[in-house]
Amino acid sequence: MKKQRLLLILLTSLTPVAWAQQGQVFETRTLKSDILKMERRYAIYLPPDYDHTDRSYPVLYLLHGAGDDHTGWVQFGAVQHIADKTIAEGRATPMIIVMPDANTKVRGYFNQPNGRFDYERFFFEELIPHIEHTYRVRSERRYRAVSGLSMGGGGTIYYALHRPGVFAAAAPLSATTESHRWIIDQGTTPAQLEAYAQRHTLDSLLSEKAAGAYIDSVKQVRWYVSCGDDDFLYRHNSRLHILFRDRQIPHEYRVKDGGHTWSYWRMELPIVLEFVSRSFAQD
Amino acid sequence: MKKQRLLLILLTSLTPVAWAQQGQVFETRTLKSDILKMERRYAIYLPPDYDHTDRSYPVLYLLHGAGDDHTGWVQFGAVQHIADKTIAEGRATPMIIVMPDANTKVRGYFNQPNGRFDYERFFFEELIPHIEHTYRVRSERRYRAVSGLSMGGGGTIYYALHRPGVFAAAAPLSATTESHRWIIDQGTTPAQLEAYAQRHTLDSLLSEKAAGAYIDSVKQVRWYVSCGDDDFLYRHNSRLHILFRDRQIPHEYRVKDGGHTWSYWRMELPIVLEFVSRSFAQD
Amino acid sequence: MKKQRLLLILLTSLTPVAWAQQGQVFETRTLKSDILKMERRYAIYLPPDYDHTDRSYPVLYLLHGAGDDHTGWVQFGAVQHIADKTIAEGRATPMIIVMPDANTKVRGYFNQPNGRFDYERFFFEELIPHIEHTYRVRSERRYRAVSGLSMGGGGTIYYALHRPGVFAAAAPLSATTESHRWIIDQGTTPAQLEAYAQRHTLDSLLSEKAAGAYIDSVKQVRWYVSCGDDDFLYRHNSRLHILFRDRQIPHEYRVKDGGHTWSYWRMELPIVLEFVSRSFAQD
Amino acid sequence: MKKQRLLLILLTSLTPVAWAQQGQVFETRTLKSDILKMERRYAIYLPPDYDHTDRSYPVLYLLHGAGDDHTGWVQFGAVQHIADKTIAEGRATPMIIVMPDANTKVRGYFNQPNGRFDYERFFFEELIPHIEHTYRVRSERRYRAVSGLSMGGGGTIYYALHRPGVFAAAAPLSATTESHRWIIDQGTTPAQLEAYAQRHTLDSLLSEKAAGAYIDSVKQVRWYVSCGDDDFLYRHNSRLHILFRDRQIPHEYRVKDGGHTWSYWRMELPIVLEFVSRSFAQD
Repeated sequence: MKKQRLLLILLTSLTPVAWAQQGQVFETRTLKSDILKMERRYAIYLPPDYDHTDRSYPVLYLLHGAGDDHTGWVQFGAVQHIADKTIAEGRATPMIIVMPDANTKVRGYFNQPNGRFDYERFFFEELIPHIEHTYRVRSERRYRAVSGLSMGGGGTIYYALHRPGVFAAAAPLSATTESHRWIIDQGTTPAQLEAYAQRHTLDSLLSEKAAGAYIDSVKQVRWYVSCGDDDFLYRHNSRLHILFRDRQIPHEYRVKDGGHTWSYWRMELPIVLEFVSRSFAQD
Repeated sequence: MKKQRLLLILLTSLTPVAWAQQGQVFETRTLKSDILKMERRYAIYLPPDYDHTDRSYPVLYLLHGAGDDHTGWVQFGAVQHIADKTIAEGRATPMIIVMPDANTKVRGYFNQPNGRFDYERFFFEELIPHIEHTYRVRSERRYRAVSGLSMGGGGTIYYALHRPGVFAAAAPLSATTESHRWIIDQGTTPAQLEAYAQRHTLDSLLSEKAAGAYIDSVKQVRWYVSCGDDDFLYRHNSRLHILFRDRQIPHEYRVKDGGHTWSYWRMELPIVLEFVSRSFAQD
Repeated sequence: MKKQRLLLILLTSLTPVAWAQQGQVFETRTLKSDILKMERRYAIYLPPDYDHTDRSYPVLYLLHGAGDDHTGWVQFGAVQHIADKTIAEGRATPMIIVMPDANTKVRGYFNQPNGRFDYERFFFEELIPHIEHTYRVRSERRYRAVSGLSMGGGGTIYYALHRPGVFAAAAPLSATTESHRWIIDQGTTPAQLEAYAQRHTLDSLLSEKAAGAYIDSVKQVRWYVSCGDDDFLYRHNSRLHILFRDRQIPHEYRVKDGGHTWSYWRMELPIVLEFVSRSFAQD
Repeated sequence: MKKQRLLLILLTSLTPVAWAQQGQVFETRTLKSDILKMERRYAIYLPPDYDHTDRSYPVLYLLHGAGDDHTGWVQFGAVQHIADKTIAEGRATPMIIVMPDANTKVRGYFNQPNGRFDYERFFFEELIPHIEHTYRVRSERRYRAVSGLSMGGGGTIYYALHRPGVFAAAAPLSATTESHRWIIDQGTTPAQLEAYAQRHTLDSLLSEKAAGAYIDSVKQVRWYVSCGDDDFLYRHNSRLHILFRDRQIPHEYRVKDGGHTWSYWRMELPIVLEFVSRSFAQD
């Protein structure tokens, strides 16, 4: 029975590599937004054992870049394969990953200066509650993180700076920090623009005058900042690092080989999942 | 040699299913306790093949620390990933892991001195029978072990000292041995407190006067004791080691790099699973 | 010829474990400097086969930091072990490594503003010729590289900026770019100081007005720039990256986990050896 | 198939030569001691490249146990193989290892209470200077460490406690801390014995009354303390850990599987070499 023995040997030596049940990705789910007066879409990743247990999970909000939508991390970012693998390897804890659409109608993650399209308000007042109501999500701060790339890296930064009490961890990738670029300013008054710029500029949010209590809460967020050395946003990220060091805001900062590309973000995604898991699982 | 190549391809595409089926974790199951006069919660891990077999399994009771509850080992302790992996590697035998809640209403694993909340009695008279009745558990002593961290390490020690005939193995991690701290003594008489202290103090339980038969039964338990060298409970564990050596109670004692942290306990969990499996599987 | 092939396979699978003859480190060799009017010391690493061959080798000048001397890379930097290993693994090509003393009498790698201690002139006009005359060194630009840490990172930067035609590669680690700090300005005129600052400031050397031919020669140098995210010199290195990107000077830039420590430099040294070897060996 | 087997043997026996040149052990070298009024012996390990370089090296004093002599670490401790291997792997920096004889005439590392045989004085006033004069040793404190087993672990502890300014690192293995046991008290007065006990007792040296400046200097030593869980000296080492933690003296403490055996010490020796190398090479 030689053949069979060979087979057994092959199986034995191959199986350790093989892993593990897959999680599920739903590309387009929706919720009704009263604030934005429309249906809004999001993609969602549910971890491998979601359907076979009563566990509640931590949640990562993962934001796409400009010109993309909620399907970007699914198609280009390989979120399912990478999350499955990183969880199976034990580097990341099982978690739910929510990828909202910030492209439809108005591009970007922030409220409009003129008050006509309050996406940020939608995100915190409707999307998060919807997710925590619809899925088995652990809803304490310590189980909630945010990450994103490019424009979504900017979203990550300003969401965590606007509401540091909401997130345990924030991981901007190849982020833009100059978010005024994404404004549609039709019918916006100069005063509105000025207030908007104040709220979306690192220097004003983290100015020397920023109250100590506020800076302290920003320090409570665990930060991971990463940008390729060939990225055109080198200035944004280098300055973010300088400003965070100057204000003594602890953060992990990485510059690696790479540009403003999905190769970079797919390389970084497992590291982000591992990084936020250290918040979820405690050191 | 076409056939062989085909086979290899098949193997490669089949193996992802092959390996480590995951076990299942149920985060919150309950039983009705007449002793405590309330519903009590527990989390439970069932090994990978539980639903596809009629096997009965050994069982490990795994106790959480103070301020935590039955979900601690699930979320922070990564019990599913670690148990799946340790079993898949053949280091641990498939087993059921029960993680009871010792936080609700009264904190701790022991009876109250005043007799109003007999958690320890609940554990042995209601929880263990419930588990052995509800799941396919091997109910002989040799298939039953207990472990836990911090306050749960204290629970581990005193459960195994109070009833050495119940457990094949006991593995306290970063344990407190001074359990009187967790007493709520409202309406407790001095005599009750004194009796309680006697029962929850190493020196009295293992005093020179302790009967030989009792010490002999304590020696029948296989002990694994571990504590980080930066743990604030260094004194408790160093003294436990000295006392066990003085009384010639065989035990594995380990002091490793680390503090009173989940990193330490996640590092130790696979070793605990391996240790109790040597009891379950016989050398 | 089946047998022989088998043998080769065996050799190949056994030899990777085995390595490698050691190179030699001489901790203190000297040369007479007419420019500095004294004996100057340097340490030198000769690759494993230096004494048993007539090969000529590329050369890396490896500069120590402030407060240290030519023995720093030997004792703290583990240059022998790391160079032996990196060469044995084939990641680096065999090379000579020269570690000069820039501590004795006047600290630093540059000429004094007042012209009284021209270390930089010594380096280029006496040390390099001495090395190339004394050892079997390949003396063309393409076989010459420079690296260093902290103050020696500053030396690396300004040496390569002052004489881009001399070096094929430059690898500043945790570099200071504000070298005027190390001046002893006794008896220095304001005009001298001004000229000195011009010559040791990135902004003036790489200003918009800097001639295209000069910038082009700087681009001919292969640059590797690395700094830990906890290093107090974060501002120097972040700005260097911004300026190099602004002036389109190609460079590999890395920010990794770490501080201003020998752990960081020992981690980086094999990467530096590999990086300069790509210059020496051609892609 | 004799031929092939021969070849394999040749390959196996050739590759070790290719690898890591060996250091040299001299089992019995001597110096004349005026203090002890006799010739004293020591064994010495010189690192692999000692004869082919001008480097100076850090030094580890490695003390034998009771009933043994300076050849113990050579024969039973496999010091040459372990040091060669640990250095070749890059875990330890090349160093000189000195193993003095503390057995001849009077057993132990300390002065006699009656002042008739001042071994400790010999060690610091004659042996160390002799070593630093005879070999290429770096003679600053940061390059000097002490370790030892059992009675030599006791020597390690009290040498480092008596003269914390002399050693960068101290690594007692399976140490006895009750050194009065080794006294030959012939002709010793009670007052001498009392003073001796004070000087060789942890509680008096590290008592609450011990001056802050002294405790601070003890904290400057990097400590590694290790003892097997089956060692009969469990009480000494557990108490040392408790006392060091109580007095907030930083130390790495390890309890591993093992007894008072050379297996344990051979297992620990590479870790000791790595530990003291972190002092020699800076983090």
